[in-house]
Amino acid sequence: MCEANAYLRRDGKEELFLEMVDKVLPHEEGLVLEDIFGRRKVVKAKIAELALVDHKIILEKE
Amino acid sequence: MCEANAYLRRDGKEELFLEMVDKVLPHEEGLVLEDIFGRRKVVKAKIAELALVDHKIILEKE
Repeated sequence: MCEANAYLRRDGKEELFLEMVDKVLPHEEGLVLEDIFGRRKVVKAKIAELALVDHKIILEKE
Repeated sequence: MCEANAYLRRDGKEELFLEMVDKVLPHEEGLVLEDIFGRRKVVKAKIAELALVDHKIILEKE
């Protein structure tokens, strides 16, 4: 599987936000992340960086 | 490997922009995409969507 873990960057530190993310889609409140089991989590943030070989999505608050 | 292909969405259609993308990083002109071989391509766009199980990154012009 080629999912990634999403981290929220705050004050230069990265906190795990959601594991095994498949989809990231625009949402009226920011983004909706969906993991490989279909579980969804909304966050008021944007995608700052990707490092897919390291399975990382870095989000930053808007 | 867990790279993805990056597509640029234009007028509702998705055009392949770069294959086997590992990293996407902010760049003064938008984003810089780096593939698994270290080849880089800059684009004035933002990340609109991810579908990692389908190996897709969707970019949209800013």
